Amino acid sequence: MKEYVIALDLGGTNSVLGLVDKEGKILNRSSFKTGDCPTIESYVAQCTESARALISQAGGKETIKAFGIGAPDVNYWDQTIENATNLPWKGIVPLAALLEKELDIPVYMTNDAKAAALGEMLYGAAQGMKDFIMITLGTGVGSGIVVNGELVYGKRSFAGELGHTSVRPETGRECPCGRRGCVEAYCSATGVVRTAHELLEQSKEESLLRKLPKETLTSKDIYDAAIQGDKLANQIFELTGSLLGEACANFATFSDPEAFIFFGGLTKAGDLLMKPLTQTYEQTVFDNYKGTARFLISQLDDADAALLGAAALAWTR
Amino acid sequence: MKEYVIALDLGGTNSVLGLVDKEGKILNRSSFKTGDCPTIESYVAQCTESARALISQAGGKETIKAFGIGAPDVNYWDQTIENATNLPWKGIVPLAALLEKELDIPVYMTNDAKAAALGEMLYGAAQGMKDFIMITLGTGVGSGIVVNGELVYGKRSFAGELGHTSVRPETGRECPCGRRGCVEAYCSATGVVRTAHELLEQSKEESLLRKLPKETLTSKDIYDAAIQGDKLANQIFELTGSLLGEACANFATFSDPEAFIFFGGLTKAGDLLMKPLTQTYEQTVFDNYKGTARFLISQLDDADAALLGAAALAWTR
Repeated sequence: MKEYVIALDLGGTNSVLGLVDKEGKILNRSSFKTGDCPTIESYVAQCTESARALISQAGGKETIKAFGIGAPDVNYWDQTIENATNLPWKGIVPLAALLEKELDIPVYMTNDAKAAALGEMLYGAAQGMKDFIMITLGTGVGSGIVVNGELVYGKRSFAGELGHTSVRPETGRECPCGRRGCVEAYCSATGVVRTAHELLEQSKEESLLRKLPKETLTSKDIYDAAIQGDKLANQIFELTGSLLGEACANFATFSDPEAFIFFGGLTKAGDLLMKPLTQTYEQTVFDNYKGTARFLISQLDDADAALLGAAALAWTR
Repeated sequence: MKEYVIALDLGGTNSVLGLVDKEGKILNRSSFKTGDCPTIESYVAQCTESARALISQAGGKETIKAFGIGAPDVNYWDQTIENATNLPWKGIVPLAALLEKELDIPVYMTNDAKAAALGEMLYGAAQGMKDFIMITLGTGVGSGIVVNGELVYGKRSFAGELGHTSVRPETGRECPCGRRGCVEAYCSATGVVRTAHELLEQSKEESLLRKLPKETLTSKDIYDAAIQGDKLANQIFELTGSLLGEACANFATFSDPEAFIFFGGLTKAGDLLMKPLTQTYEQTVFDNYKGTARFLISQLDDADAALLGAAALAWTR
């Protein structure tokens, strides 16, 4: 009986493996530092060792359906990691095939934001949905788009870079990607801090944020100030939510989604973010879409979500 | 043997029916004025009569695989026309079911721009492609998005309104839809005329267009002036193409398409439009997508394209 899957959340800092059942219960987990493996050979060796321990805890290979991986810069069609900027291994890395060879179980790999969308569909806020857009608000802004129950990959598997659509093409700030006015330049954790720096400079408004050292200001500091009623901190979330709402109004024209699902640190701001977001969306969206989409925050536990996404890939392939 | 399909291009002005074989050859056609049928009952009667004549020419019902319809405001999931603004019948019209009852052959209906995408995939520039975006540049700007070989419909079948994404959200002109800076407000035939009016007003530049009555200026007039070397007319196409290129750079992030395929009157401008379009696209698109998409003009005959789209629906369902 295939009762379990192995899941791997491959991040720039940590690699977390888990043994996960069909209901999304994580029965065991282990982790190691990704950076401790300077070569892909050493990474495969470390990963195989951790996976074997989990497989043995599960009662052997016969109980394992598959091994799912969520990682950055995955080419889904080729099952490779391509020129990852935040991982130690350069070029094109056929990680799935390398692990499959060692472990002799099917290994599937997808991009982390796309895995997150699968996780929501199987275990989270998107259960029962076939058309939704998942947006992850972290250091950057990622996305996973589901159309008619399937992830959108596109010709070369690079679909779903909604963080790099422009919402302020004329006067917007530069995104590290080189474009002007990208969603990521405003609605990521770093974007929110940039907004704070700008507003602190431009306005004379008293603010708790002025008491903090500018260089180390975080989105968490801004949230803490906002819930204490700090007006400027509230303005920052209003601007962020409003721009994200405008962006979602453009996204709706593409796939007429049933819901937008948000995940990541910034969603902790709750209504501070979601209220201006939905308000601006409904004000600016094309008539056909008004009042039809739901705006949800992921209910999955932060620490588990990436692992559950990788598990969902293993269960649904 | 199912050798043929019946196709219907249901437009606000004309309804054109055709008998089409698998290779896209239109063997017979007939048409009538849509407006001559003030009730849906009279439309079904007229349409049934025309379809029966084509079926009899084909050698009877046994030779017909299906009946495909391209129409405005179609809800694909329900196979109805919903609140069409340019058709005589209001409310929700179950046209496919009504015709199927009369003709006793399977009837399928989709939106006209989506039918156009199917037509390109079966008979036109998108043959062999699984991921592309079709953009129709007519009085308005329509679109049909194909992901992994399937049309994107979305939850309520209203996906693919890319003409109503905003490329100039800050300072852009108002779109008749109520939004600011929509692609349609610039890159449709009417948008191009608006650009002409604006530039004629703002600049002192000599132009052939100044000799034409402002009220009746058409995109064709602008094209005629442009190919005669008129500088202002050329500027109009540069601006139009450039904005469309910027818009496509946003669309790419959604579905990583292999190609963008353009159809409609404005594409007659050829390089006048396509050169600034591809240039601006490559300049502004996110790095991952640079140099990877093709920009094609439909090769289907204008008069046949809508009919072939409807036929493609009948063949592929």
